[in-house]
Amino acid sequence: MKLVRYGAKGKEKPGLIDKEGKLRDLSGVVPDITSAQLSSAALAKLAKIKTSTLPLVKGKPRYGVPLADVGKFLAIGLNYSDHAAEAGMPCPKEPIIFFKADTSLSGPNDPVMLPKGSKKSDWEVELGVVIGKKARYVTKKDALKHVAGYCLINDVSEREYQIERGGTWDKGKGCDTFGPVGPWLVTADEIKDPQKLGMWLDVNGKRFQTGTTKTMIFDVRTIVSYVSEFMTLLPGDIITTGTPPGVGMGVKPKPRYLKAGDVMTLGIEGLGEQRQEVVAFKK
Amino acid sequence: MKLVRYGAKGKEKPGLIDKEGKLRDLSGVVPDITSAQLSSAALAKLAKIKTSTLPLVKGKPRYGVPLADVGKFLAIGLNYSDHAAEAGMPCPKEPIIFFKADTSLSGPNDPVMLPKGSKKSDWEVELGVVIGKKARYVTKKDALKHVAGYCLINDVSEREYQIERGGTWDKGKGCDTFGPVGPWLVTADEIKDPQKLGMWLDVNGKRFQTGTTKTMIFDVRTIVSYVSEFMTLLPGDIITTGTPPGVGMGVKPKPRYLKAGDVMTLGIEGLGEQRQEVVAFKK
Repeated sequence: MKLVRYGAKGKEKPGLIDKEGKLRDLSGVVPDITSAQLSSAALAKLAKIKTSTLPLVKGKPRYGVPLADVGKFLAIGLNYSDHAAEAGMPCPKEPIIFFKADTSLSGPNDPVMLPKGSKKSDWEVELGVVIGKKARYVTKKDALKHVAGYCLINDVSEREYQIERGGTWDKGKGCDTFGPVGPWLVTADEIKDPQKLGMWLDVNGKRFQTGTTKTMIFDVRTIVSYVSEFMTLLPGDIITTGTPPGVGMGVKPKPRYLKAGDVMTLGIEGLGEQRQEVVAFKK
Repeated sequence: MKLVRYGAKGKEKPGLIDKEGKLRDLSGVVPDITSAQLSSAALAKLAKIKTSTLPLVKGKPRYGVPLADVGKFLAIGLNYSDHAAEAGMPCPKEPIIFFKADTSLSGPNDPVMLPKGSKKSDWEVELGVVIGKKARYVTKKDALKHVAGYCLINDVSEREYQIERGGTWDKGKGCDTFGPVGPWLVTADEIKDPQKLGMWLDVNGKRFQTGTTKTMIFDVRTIVSYVSEFMTLLPGDIITTGTPPGVGMGVKPKPRYLKAGDVMTLGIEGLGEQRQEVVAFKK
């Protein structure tokens, strides 16, 4: 299933995308798409619905983050070997874990706002993993049983804040609007192999990132298992799993950072597409 | 006011500590102590209650985290110059920001569990700042207007995970039970000057940390203002503000880390005391 939340910000309704790609209203069935909706039992119940009986939604509504109550918003750094090289950093021996602030969560097509005075805001197309079942010290073998689904994420990053302002990366990753998620939360049954997904990102129609989840250093099952050794993962937690090469920081001979008016478009096979206009800082 | 949540884990009721230090039940007045309860208006309403009219709570119930819906659980690293020295790290030029996982939140007297195989778990007595009003690019001058209150926090830390396992500090700070908070959420009006609070921590009755918030490198108003430039702070967010010297990692000639059976007791002037027994890992 492709679960969505549509409508004005803060007033999203639950929906799903049917096999013809049409948006249908789920609000007669569930009040919202929440972490409680991510258990195998709850998802199985939803899967039994004859989608043709659900009301079609007219027009082209805005999409919100496809999960109403995201818990931890975690991220894995430098998880593609060729991206590590372009960032001028050694390949990590263990997954790098950092946090994105909950307040960075943003609809997939909502504008991305540059922070005040930002000169080094950058893009990162990433595969997001949505936890559906509590995970604590889970083995790699069992890890995917704890995954409810997947989603597309732009892990927008301010490189100066991340790297030059001291301390951990968290500073450059959690600015408001820096976490576009969606449009869809695609349940795990639809993604035969999360390590075979093509991904891309354009800025103003020019391709910058082309990759595949095949070249991850640590695959999804390794990541879920690994993170669950350091903290308990709960339904509704999201882990974004790193980006392939082609970020602005890595452009030669000179980095190419975001400026107001730029348009980012990005996608991952089976997970839909996003489009964000970059806007100037507004207090 | 000293707001608390008391009772069994997951079933806490709201309460307050009256002027005689007695616990009184607030559940007839508010359903719980939540972020919605932290606005000036909501706190003013609570402050008008004649505490003698509230039912006394019998016995010695467990205390929970004094806020039911903590949002971001942020922390400032190396914020006392003498602690930076003992950690062998240079004094930061800007505040270091990291995250503690929501799943690390723990009652003030609940046991602290060592993670599987942990050899370097350590203590850190800290002043916690509870946000009461949305803060985004606030000035130092205005910062304290966004603070609803203060609380005692033990920023328990696994030094191997934090420092030797690659990536950011977040890995060693968010283990389950690594974030004891409370017993009280003390409203800001009771803390005349957050930069003049004595603090201490004992292990098995032996004093290890003695300090005062006076020697913070970045004071509370600077921290709130600074963090609000990188992410929007919301009511219910907590920032723990760093620890004075005396952590286990800094003990000479050899670090002194936590082992099962150890008992940590700690306190900050005006904010109450905590007591945690350290227990072995249990799956």
